[in-house]
Amino acid sequence: GFDTACMLKTVAHRLLQPSSYLRPASALLRSVQPRLDHPSLPPFRSLSMSTVMKAEEYAAALNVARPPPAVVGQVLNEVNTPALCVDLDVMEANMKAMSASIKPYPSLILRPHAKAHKSGEIAQKLVREGGAVGVCCQKMCEVEEMARWGVEDIFYSNEIANQQKADRFAQIGKETGTKLSILVDDTVQVALLENAAKKNGINIDVIIEVNVGQDRCGVEPGADAVPLAQSIINASHLTFKGIQAYQGWAQHVRDKEERRAIILDKVAGGAKATIDALKKAGIDCNFCTGGGTGTYPFEAESGVFNEIQPGSYIFMDADYGRNLVDGGRAFRDFGFSLFILAEIMSKPNSGRAVTDAGLKAVSLDSGVPTAADYVEGKGAVPREDLTYKSGGDEHGIVIVSDEARSSWTKTVGDRIVFIPGHCDPTVNMHDWLVGVRKGKVEKVFAVGGRGPGH
Amino acid sequence: GFDTACMLKTVAHRLLQPSSYLRPASALLRSVQPRLDHPSLPPFRSLSMSTVMKAEEYAAALNVARPPPAVVGQVLNEVNTPALCVDLDVMEANMKAMSASIKPYPSLILRPHAKAHKSGEIAQKLVREGGAVGVCCQKMCEVEEMARWGVEDIFYSNEIANQQKADRFAQIGKETGTKLSILVDDTVQVALLENAAKKNGINIDVIIEVNVGQDRCGVEPGADAVPLAQSIINASHLTFKGIQAYQGWAQHVRDKEERRAIILDKVAGGAKATIDALKKAGIDCNFCTGGGTGTYPFEAESGVFNEIQPGSYIFMDADYGRNLVDGGRAFRDFGFSLFILAEIMSKPNSGRAVTDAGLKAVSLDSGVPTAADYVEGKGAVPREDLTYKSGGDEHGIVIVSDEARSSWTKTVGDRIVFIPGHCDPTVNMHDWLVGVRKGKVEKVFAVGGRGPGH
Repeated sequence: GFDTACMLKTVAHRLLQPSSYLRPASALLRSVQPRLDHPSLPPFRSLSMSTVMKAEEYAAALNVARPPPAVVGQVLNEVNTPALCVDLDVMEANMKAMSASIKPYPSLILRPHAKAHKSGEIAQKLVREGGAVGVCCQKMCEVEEMARWGVEDIFYSNEIANQQKADRFAQIGKETGTKLSILVDDTVQVALLENAAKKNGINIDVIIEVNVGQDRCGVEPGADAVPLAQSIINASHLTFKGIQAYQGWAQHVRDKEERRAIILDKVAGGAKATIDALKKAGIDCNFCTGGGTGTYPFEAESGVFNEIQPGSYIFMDADYGRNLVDGGRAFRDFGFSLFILAEIMSKPNSGRAVTDAGLKAVSLDSGVPTAADYVEGKGAVPREDLTYKSGGDEHGIVIVSDEARSSWTKTVGDRIVFIPGHCDPTVNMHDWLVGVRKGKVEKVFAVGGRGPGH
Repeated sequence: GFDTACMLKTVAHRLLQPSSYLRPASALLRSVQPRLDHPSLPPFRSLSMSTVMKAEEYAAALNVARPPPAVVGQVLNEVNTPALCVDLDVMEANMKAMSASIKPYPSLILRPHAKAHKSGEIAQKLVREGGAVGVCCQKMCEVEEMARWGVEDIFYSNEIANQQKADRFAQIGKETGTKLSILVDDTVQVALLENAAKKNGINIDVIIEVNVGQDRCGVEPGADAVPLAQSIINASHLTFKGIQAYQGWAQHVRDKEERRAIILDKVAGGAKATIDALKKAGIDCNFCTGGGTGTYPFEAESGVFNEIQPGSYIFMDADYGRNLVDGGRAFRDFGFSLFILAEIMSKPNSGRAVTDAGLKAVSLDSGVPTAADYVEGKGAVPREDLTYKSGGDEHGIVIVSDEARSSWTKTVGDRIVFIPGHCDPTVNMHDWLVGVRKGKVEKVFAVGGRGPGH
């Protein structure tokens, strides 16, 4: 036990440096324990980590975390590429814009989705400065990261289908005192959660997911929710909180009125039908959550929703930038704060440059990234004369338009920035998010909730 | 310095447990140092890590590495999902099949590409048991991982365009004694490498990349290589080794004869024209490297290539599985050893099941993954009656065909496996690769070279 205890002490010592975002010592000590589990210490993690890891595995666990691409005080040209960066001025302006946008709905709760940033530190910033009540998470590693940073209200907006995961979830709630809520769409999940909550002597709020057109998880709108709600009510350690009505692909319907109609008709309509069916069966349901960056104004105006879950607005991405608003203008309520900083490795001719931002630095699932200029205080400003083309795992090709060939003189060793097509899976590729203000690194955030989610 | 020294000692102690794959103590101690840099210790990394990290950053660095989803001895049903798994019987059979396949070319060197697996331990296995001379890497974090595991011959098959990266590369060579080679297509890169090699008192072998049709990096075939080769020859610490002629998208041309024609005409032809131009200018060029899993038999038969770089063959993926060979049969020289183990979180009806393998567990850049059964000793065996549909970041929807609705009875809590569309970026999403033999976890590999590559 000596080595582990020593390492644990060291890590705890480091963590306990004064920092306004950090939680009390005991919670933090427990939060680093998963990494350092040992029979001489109380087990924190019931699943894989409760079994003692071998020495090589400890070492490997320490080795796989990548060092950050930047240190505080560097300018963008000194940052190691490819790096995921966020312009802090623009991110903070986006936070303010969201607060202003929902001001007409004073009873509406803002619970930003952590699957966008996956950083406990950013979640805390959203709670302290952005009007957030807490977070949504969609994977256990996001829940762990948020709890580790002291987020006190976590909604796991997804289903859990096995006892070990349910136990882990309840255990985090017990150990950190975090208020927990979670989705279900099946009585199997209810039984697992009740078991876990009971074992850990805590209460979990449970929300029923309703399928309002995405055809993913969720019971169908209406009376299907009744027996499920009843099973939650019957459980001794669960509380029935309400319903979720979220439609993922509606976020990206381009035309504003079409997007609005989907939310008001199918989404709010399906939610309303479910609430009515529950009421008819004698079950009170006063809570409905949903909405994302593309549709939240419509959930807000519908009158059916008490809570919205937008996540991407703090960053924006190229795909959200293709949404339209009144008069067919591009959706620019939020600025492009997030960008990939890339380096030109090769420039074979004036029509082509090859950068180091390939499939491992930027996700292509919602289209290729948009080439941009970095402008101090404005973040990433799209360019139309440069087009990204996939060059495989570690190459991003820039195609230079005929008109730009003489004026765009960047060459080998120069930097270029890209706005990701889809922010969530792009952030997920990076261990670190470099916070930049006026071209200088001010803060490096750990993307602690990164990973496939097990 | 106390805490860092203590932590370093602890990590070193763990690393120095007997293990046949590990290098001498001094090299290992240096290899963990980037994570733990401190002014009281000699700096290992010249770039970002040479500046002292703040205490919170140290702590965050330790926290971001995810714990493994499995421990040795578990059966697949106990593994935490979503998990990336490899069937070891099939992977070893794939290694044997490659050795057998290139036996007719005894002078052909096999240098498997590490961008497929990104694991130093698997690279060592390929050197020890798979006939590999060393590895190809395409990012610095892959180079670091390979050097850390003691791979003694590393080819960085990409361009480096800044002095800090070039210095880091040379420093790894100096510190570990690893034989280094690298690509160039511009004299700027040659100058950076010469500078770095000189500073570190080592020699680097340099290979000229020739653009043989992918339109990515590389000089055009023919005489363009001559002044570049001359600049390498003129450098005091560089050796001109030869050329690379690699065509990425040719790997995935479905028809065998079409694929073969591209390699024999454009690829081997472009390589030959370049070698001839160099010879004409009085520069001897006896080395040509290239080829991938989709085309390597044609590079082998061309007579122009001395070395091949296939990587995916140890895993296979759904996209390579769509290539055709003689008689229009599907390419099955290698078995599907790699698969994502997923859990069914929700099954709203008999035509749809929702799993926990979404955009953060499997890359969609080369098409959706293929639903499969896990069969002991055979790995993943594709199914045609189940289709994967993207459900976003953390949801993978399974669409059940009409015919399969009554027979496929899996439900909430059950497991299903998927063959990734593209192995490289999928492996890149995972910190751990679970090695399975006959349904049981035998080994957990760290994907130590994972990351965007800075």
